[in-house]
Amino acid sequence: MAYKYLPFYETQAFCVKVFQGYGFSEEDSRMITEVLLEADLSGIESHGIQRLTRYDYEIRSGFVKIGSEPEIVYETPISAVMDGHDGMGQIIGVKAMDLAIRKASLAGIGIVTVRDSNHYGIAGYYADMAAKKRLIGISMTNSESIMVPTYGKEPVLGTNPIAFAMYAEPAPFCFDAATTVVPRGKLEVYAKRGSGLPDGWAIDETGRPSSDSDRVLKNIINKSCGGILPLGGAGEQTGGHKGYGFGMICEIMTGILSHGCTSNHVNRTPGSINTSQCFIALDYGIFGDKAETEARLSTFLNEIRQAAKADGEQRIYIHGEKEFERHDKVLRDGIPVNEKTYEEMIRIGKQTGAADLLPKYVNR
Amino acid sequence: MAYKYLPFYETQAFCVKVFQGYGFSEEDSRMITEVLLEADLSGIESHGIQRLTRYDYEIRSGFVKIGSEPEIVYETPISAVMDGHDGMGQIIGVKAMDLAIRKASLAGIGIVTVRDSNHYGIAGYYADMAAKKRLIGISMTNSESIMVPTYGKEPVLGTNPIAFAMYAEPAPFCFDAATTVVPRGKLEVYAKRGSGLPDGWAIDETGRPSSDSDRVLKNIINKSCGGILPLGGAGEQTGGHKGYGFGMICEIMTGILSHGCTSNHVNRTPGSINTSQCFIALDYGIFGDKAETEARLSTFLNEIRQAAKADGEQRIYIHGEKEFERHDKVLRDGIPVNEKTYEEMIRIGKQTGAADLLPKYVNR
Repeated sequence: MAYKYLPFYETQAFCVKVFQGYGFSEEDSRMITEVLLEADLSGIESHGIQRLTRYDYEIRSGFVKIGSEPEIVYETPISAVMDGHDGMGQIIGVKAMDLAIRKASLAGIGIVTVRDSNHYGIAGYYADMAAKKRLIGISMTNSESIMVPTYGKEPVLGTNPIAFAMYAEPAPFCFDAATTVVPRGKLEVYAKRGSGLPDGWAIDETGRPSSDSDRVLKNIINKSCGGILPLGGAGEQTGGHKGYGFGMICEIMTGILSHGCTSNHVNRTPGSINTSQCFIALDYGIFGDKAETEARLSTFLNEIRQAAKADGEQRIYIHGEKEFERHDKVLRDGIPVNEKTYEEMIRIGKQTGAADLLPKYVNR
Repeated sequence: MAYKYLPFYETQAFCVKVFQGYGFSEEDSRMITEVLLEADLSGIESHGIQRLTRYDYEIRSGFVKIGSEPEIVYETPISAVMDGHDGMGQIIGVKAMDLAIRKASLAGIGIVTVRDSNHYGIAGYYADMAAKKRLIGISMTNSESIMVPTYGKEPVLGTNPIAFAMYAEPAPFCFDAATTVVPRGKLEVYAKRGSGLPDGWAIDETGRPSSDSDRVLKNIINKSCGGILPLGGAGEQTGGHKGYGFGMICEIMTGILSHGCTSNHVNRTPGSINTSQCFIALDYGIFGDKAETEARLSTFLNEIRQAAKADGEQRIYIHGEKEFERHDKVLRDGIPVNEKTYEEMIRIGKQTGAADLLPKYVNR
């Protein structure tokens, strides 16, 4: 399927107007748009504007409550529990990480767990918020069940991404990864492309390996058995139990420590999705001189870049480096979207009164 | 190769005498033995008594300094940096986690990073120490380079295990996993058995996949290229960059935050191994009622146990459950060791004056 390229700033203006069209304030609309398009700027198509249709559905169906304010329901100098009251995940996420950052600045660390939130976009956005303040940033979210635990065929964990970021020169370290082999968004991209799934990604409702993205996604939507495998794949030989374990750590830090929903209870209550999240900011000044710590990381990252490459490979990437370098290209060439996504934008533009700002595309 | 079964308490008495034979105090010898044999009790052969020969080498060669005391070189109410001064990793580890636990009891969290330590056994032991006190326990260690980063052929990260434990009924959640597909100890077990490595575990010095455990281990010992792949395997399609990323998080939390060595500098200085570690204790009382939090985790773990099994599978395990259930069997039947390990015990017993306590084996 051919890609169309949308000019970045026009697309941004369009999104802001779309979210205002739903009823969000201009400030909130800008906040949501920034998190959303950061994914496209970073080349993470799965979590960018192709997901607008899902947010459109969740907002219009009332799962996302416009105007609801997150509430701090438990607090200590180093921690807080926030009830998102079904607000937009991106707004809750930015406020929760801001709170974690304030606590870290005062007390060395801030850990904010969140319940009754919604999908919040890329976990890395929030980790990066802290890294930009010279703090280690960590963020995790659970999600509707999609990960099949080792030896199971019923999904009970979400894709459960874990993001971890820290300042370094010339580019920050920013790790952001689903604890499944791939995130749900990647299946959506494959389904839109109409291409089959690679081996080792997913199983069908009988528990057998499947390369059929439509079938796997249909099972997920119908809450049937089958789903995505944990990082490490099926069984234990290549470490599938480890991916499942990292997914469990995410569940504990989000759903359990917020007294909210674990993934197997997400999107099971009429009218609410009830996602749980966690935001950590850590001031590494509590371990010594910050500039020295950062210099040590920068040196280490450089040693890795310079290590011997596998035959036929030109480069070893540091986490976040591809995404960091992608920004300039997207600003220059535009955001690549496939035809289906563009059609969704046309429909959503009309429904929200933003049609006049629909960005014109360029084919490349 | 046939396994011999060693009675647990006799083996324990033997180990204590071995470590006293090197010059450790009785208390320290008991501490080291407890961590070492906890691996065998948990069925983690790779990190149990089969590794005695490696400790024997490191102690007799002077890498491990007997009688050295770990020193706190930086401290805040929630953190500390400890210099291990090349002491035995298990002694440093227990003291560092004790300190993290004390800080968590007073301030909600304690994070202790350690530099200039040695191999400390199973990371899960230290995480469990906190879980037994109704705190979340986290521990990580780097190690001599063995993990090849995605697109590289030169190892620059260690096996870098991450352990995470939390109290639950009827058994705690205890995750403990190398961020490589498998730990080095597993290669050692395969080499001792004389059997080939499964696909997707390792690459040789040319960067090609290898099933030859002797060759892979020899390269590791000679610091040649080749090594173990990150969790997720080669390339990015099945998430190898994610295992590499979790390994990086371990490096940052250990080598970088302690101002110690990252894995690519571990065991590169004559006379010192310079392993770095991290110990975190988190009092989840900072997020609300602890009993309710624990009950929520216990419920969730039970929901996972009861989820639909893959065709042909009887059971979904929670992390730590196999190990927890293994204890009774090992106490009853003895510690399984292969012939080569038993021969090493005979030699070490003679050298340390513990030969009279060498446990008699039973063949099964």
